Amino acid sequence: MTETATNMRLKLPITCFILEIILIILFGVLVEYDHDTGASKDHGHGNNSSSTHSAYENEFYYRYPSFQDVHVMIFIGFGFLMTFLQRYGFSSVGFNFLIAAFSLQWATLMQGFFHGMKGGKIHVGVLSMINADFCTGSVLISFGAVLGKTSPIQLLIMAIFEVTLFAVNEYILVTILGTRDAGGSMTIHTFGAYFGLMVTRILYRPHLDKSKHKNSSVYHSDLFAMIGTLYLWMFWPSFNSAITEHGAPQHRTALNTYYSLAACTMSTYAMSALTAHDGKLDMVHIQNAALAGGVAAGTAGEMMLTPSGSMIVGFLAGVISVLGFKYLSPILEEKLKIQDTCGIHNLHGMPGVLGAIVGAVTSALATKDVYGEGFKDVFPDLEEGRTSSMQGSIQAISLAITLGIALLGGLIVGFILKLPVFGAPDDASCFEDSIYWEVPGEEEKSHDNELAAVMTEESEKLNS
Amino acid sequence: MTETATNMRLKLPITCFILEIILIILFGVLVEYDHDTGASKDHGHGNNSSSTHSAYENEFYYRYPSFQDVHVMIFIGFGFLMTFLQRYGFSSVGFNFLIAAFSLQWATLMQGFFHGMKGGKIHVGVLSMINADFCTGSVLISFGAVLGKTSPIQLLIMAIFEVTLFAVNEYILVTILGTRDAGGSMTIHTFGAYFGLMVTRILYRPHLDKSKHKNSSVYHSDLFAMIGTLYLWMFWPSFNSAITEHGAPQHRTALNTYYSLAACTMSTYAMSALTAHDGKLDMVHIQNAALAGGVAAGTAGEMMLTPSGSMIVGFLAGVISVLGFKYLSPILEEKLKIQDTCGIHNLHGMPGVLGAIVGAVTSALATKDVYGEGFKDVFPDLEEGRTSSMQGSIQAISLAITLGIALLGGLIVGFILKLPVFGAPDDASCFEDSIYWEVPGEEEKSHDNELAAVMTEESEKLNS
Amino acid sequence: MTETATNMRLKLPITCFILEIILIILFGVLVEYDHDTGASKDHGHGNNSSSTHSAYENEFYYRYPSFQDVHVMIFIGFGFLMTFLQRYGFSSVGFNFLIAAFSLQWATLMQGFFHGMKGGKIHVGVLSMINADFCTGSVLISFGAVLGKTSPIQLLIMAIFEVTLFAVNEYILVTILGTRDAGGSMTIHTFGAYFGLMVTRILYRPHLDKSKHKNSSVYHSDLFAMIGTLYLWMFWPSFNSAITEHGAPQHRTALNTYYSLAACTMSTYAMSALTAHDGKLDMVHIQNAALAGGVAAGTAGEMMLTPSGSMIVGFLAGVISVLGFKYLSPILEEKLKIQDTCGIHNLHGMPGVLGAIVGAVTSALATKDVYGEGFKDVFPDLEEGRTSSMQGSIQAISLAITLGIALLGGLIVGFILKLPVFGAPDDASCFEDSIYWEVPGEEEKSHDNELAAVMTEESEKLNS
Repeated sequence: MTETATNMRLKLPITCFILEIILIILFGVLVEYDHDTGASKDHGHGNNSSSTHSAYENEFYYRYPSFQDVHVMIFIGFGFLMTFLQRYGFSSVGFNFLIAAFSLQWATLMQGFFHGMKGGKIHVGVLSMINADFCTGSVLISFGAVLGKTSPIQLLIMAIFEVTLFAVNEYILVTILGTRDAGGSMTIHTFGAYFGLMVTRILYRPHLDKSKHKNSSVYHSDLFAMIGTLYLWMFWPSFNSAITEHGAPQHRTALNTYYSLAACTMSTYAMSALTAHDGKLDMVHIQNAALAGGVAAGTAGEMMLTPSGSMIVGFLAGVISVLGFKYLSPILEEKLKIQDTCGIHNLHGMPGVLGAIVGAVTSALATKDVYGEGFKDVFPDLEEGRTSSMQGSIQAISLAITLGIALLGGLIVGFILKLPVFGAPDDASCFEDSIYWEVPGEEEKSHDNELAAVMTEESEKLNS
Repeated sequence: MTETATNMRLKLPITCFILEIILIILFGVLVEYDHDTGASKDHGHGNNSSSTHSAYENEFYYRYPSFQDVHVMIFIGFGFLMTFLQRYGFSSVGFNFLIAAFSLQWATLMQGFFHGMKGGKIHVGVLSMINADFCTGSVLISFGAVLGKTSPIQLLIMAIFEVTLFAVNEYILVTILGTRDAGGSMTIHTFGAYFGLMVTRILYRPHLDKSKHKNSSVYHSDLFAMIGTLYLWMFWPSFNSAITEHGAPQHRTALNTYYSLAACTMSTYAMSALTAHDGKLDMVHIQNAALAGGVAAGTAGEMMLTPSGSMIVGFLAGVISVLGFKYLSPILEEKLKIQDTCGIHNLHGMPGVLGAIVGAVTSALATKDVYGEGFKDVFPDLEEGRTSSMQGSIQAISLAITLGIALLGGLIVGFILKLPVFGAPDDASCFEDSIYWEVPGEEEKSHDNELAAVMTEESEKLNS
Repeated sequence: MTETATNMRLKLPITCFILEIILIILFGVLVEYDHDTGASKDHGHGNNSSSTHSAYENEFYYRYPSFQDVHVMIFIGFGFLMTFLQRYGFSSVGFNFLIAAFSLQWATLMQGFFHGMKGGKIHVGVLSMINADFCTGSVLISFGAVLGKTSPIQLLIMAIFEVTLFAVNEYILVTILGTRDAGGSMTIHTFGAYFGLMVTRILYRPHLDKSKHKNSSVYHSDLFAMIGTLYLWMFWPSFNSAITEHGAPQHRTALNTYYSLAACTMSTYAMSALTAHDGKLDMVHIQNAALAGGVAAGTAGEMMLTPSGSMIVGFLAGVISVLGFKYLSPILEEKLKIQDTCGIHNLHGMPGVLGAIVGAVTSALATKDVYGEGFKDVFPDLEEGRTSSMQGSIQAISLAITLGIALLGGLIVGFILKLPVFGAPDDASCFEDSIYWEVPGEEEKSHDNELAAVMTEESEKLNS
């Protein structure tokens, strides 16, 4: 690929304009406010208590704070987590921003099409906003695998297909099979991870070592990444509980996730010191593995997992995640030719599978005795004749379906992205912002220049 | 101006102390808790269900999450957005902090005085907190125009006048004319922008090129700025919906703003690649223009704009904002002598006017058919005899009034700030923290020093 | 201590694993979901309005947004506030993360044991989550005193004891004495500060000047610290109001804290310019003293302090905090051998005591006239025969008890931490990440290296 191939002057504007115009047209034809958002129903008055009451029961007040937390995870969390690379911060945050802004619109249509049409219209409100952000999260997970090696156009094209397949998989699981997966261990994390891993496998670059020196962090870039890590960690309880049933299930999901993450952080620090060079902690582990407890609580979080059960799950997630970074990732890269920039297999892949298994087991063990009147909130199908062990089996089958669709989808999309028209960087220009961004000069350079000037003067003096 | 002119040892303490003491006295005389905040009404008990119920209906629970999002926009959003300058990060975040802390207190008094006195008292609660933060936002917009060229005392004095004029303008629009402007396309953005532009015009510095080399970003300062950008972007739906009527109107406003911003981001990336050097993306555009969709949805956001209508508005806002940065800002600077450091004309000025126009048109087209029972929540005056086209005209007149007050106010305040007693930096010291802040040595310098030492040794060896 | 003493390969994993396994076992035996979290009670259905109603009254919706704000303060606020040190950012954010994740689990048990057992079980939900985060905050305050001078194992051991003593003190004050301290001026800030100060006194290092050059900030580290500062500042109203009674008391507490902080920021800027070198602002003051208004409103925030009363309290807190940084800290270090890295005495110690005194006075002046029906929400014991002046005395006694337990506890824990088996850094390695972390190479170094290469070439040319 030549330098000009990566020039985005026409390619990117055309892609963005066409996509947005299509989105606007489809929204115009298909999308309507839902009954809590449209103007016909609620109407709030400070003085009229009965109508105020109905205004106060608007879903907005019971979902929107969770939505905002999820929104922060998507844009700050994912965006800054990926800024750890020394010269790819603009692209990490900036492309994250672009593909998220596109994906949430496209996801609204795809998810609405597959499981939300009423009277030929897609109804939108705070719940569709959360679901669209969830689907976007899946795309951003895949982005982590190909980070530094793809053009923004490749990323937008990946998003088009991945959002669509996400909606299909989600439809099969949640709507057809009645799978429980409120926090998306399967639909979001497992799907996004294995899709992304397959894409990066297909896009394998044998000569990526040409830009190896840029595929690492510097001191301040690791601190920027910690902003992403901590926002993901803090708001994960909101993520897993954002679309559960209201009341105790939502409350419990947040609580379980909180304990899972706390325990995961403990095992992550332990494993990092145990496995890393000289007993020193490795920022890569802290930035990533400490989050695995959130991923692993994504399916069973709404169930009666108990606080200590949640802690065990989080603890295990941290252990396998650090082990993955230390031992599995190098093998995947050397043997299977999977170049996984952010290690999404360790943060989203394996912990997602763990979460799915925990969810299947917890479902299989569910009894009405334990759940009481809340049983039908968590397992509505079990009220209607399905047995717990059937539900457990369906959860397990759902994991297999998710893996299948993700891998097959990633395979096809990977080959599409291989087409040499999307402006991917060449092997020596990976992990480098200046391919796609105007990068400012460094302040430090001026110091160097002054030094160089001094040096030259000195030399001249010596010379004379 | 001499070096001593910028010394703040006495000027700043005296200014701050006098202002705060006046504030405390006026608060003591004039301000009371409102009926949801004072102790006489609500009282929550975990066990007493009827009184709990009334405690649960406290406005706090329906406004405070929005308030906190707005608060983050004011302090982190505006503060960090302006850290893009390489040597002005302390001042950007720090002066933003100072003038915001002052303005929100002063705004509580001014807004309370003009449209909130009950029984001779200003009643405060979560709604007054949000409104004070809104007014503060307007001051911070103006700060963007003069960033790097003003002393903290000038900024405090600007805030005193701007907050007052903001409250006057808001009173004329919202209370007298019945203008709808929940998210402040006119009252906040248009007002703040044109006020600030006029101030910076009066403070025109013909020799500002003396500090031109500091009027630019470095790599990490652009990443800090993206923290500001993303928090503004994520929480703008909360901003526009923070003071709407409860229920569907608030829900809808958040939703419309979310779509407007997503579409705006798409058009911003497209236009940035199209117009910038070599087809590369320009961080200035991404940091600023991607937010124009929030500004432009500030008036019509609560109306039945429809999701696709919101997307069109956001899309256009992004386009005009990037075009403004690329083509209009240089003209404003050269021909009209408007030195607009942050390009507020492109982010707040033009998109604010666009938002006002969209609001006027959407109002003029409003019918009870479309809005149903919610009509009176969005257009209370239309219930009482005013026609939609009258409302549209009033919206348009309100834009003109806002522009008039902003420009005239900025003119007068600009001349006041020109008085040579406020410690403004001289032309060669603009965009430089070390005028007003103790700036630590750079870690990198030690490297340089070591290098310099090595170099000297080498030279000495050669010399001998 | 030798280099190997600080090696964490076995010590840290063993400590973390043992602690987490103990936590999991104790949680398994002792902890249960509370009645708003367990499955037996609430059950939300979109369609069934009566059960929806009960689901909507779940504590989750009235506490969780406050919890998330507090959570951000603990992990981002405290974590980033301490990143001001030039080479200790990984440890500041990273150890903050580790000890917070441990402490919140341990605090759940300790607080539950001392004041929450029902039927032999500790009941958990959103309220226990907030309380655990509060207790964690206290540990993080103490961390600020010893920052840069302790190993992660020392910090974990400190947390074990401090959390326990915190729970004891809280039990004595809140449960036995009926002390009011919703925002924790005493229980959190005074306790954490004096405990930490005593620990750092016992751990006094006479030769700490060996690493003095690293005990300072650089430009970008000060900006990272401002992220912490601003999140603490913005969310402090949520912190102080997080566990008050619902309704007006919660609303009022947030409002009072908001005004206290705004006034504190004004006096901080004034005092910083007045006392600092050359009339320039000092980042240390801005980062810390501007928060003292939140600390000082921690006890009286829920009372009828009035907005102007809150402003006076915040104003004074800012003044004493800056004076403490400027004049008292050097004395404490030289005369009392208290090496207080972050100056917690100035941010948490003195303002905490101020807050306790303000709380005692405000309690002593409380009358049913002023509080109306809300009297019993703020002062339940005054409904049952206690007089206001008695309540005031109890508040004052509570301060003395808190100081006593904190100082005695810190003394004992300090001696425990002195045992030479926990891997503390030696005097020359303090304030240095690379002792415990793998630190990446600096990008800037490559510039230097290139320069060095050029220089060598030049020299060689000259030489030949």
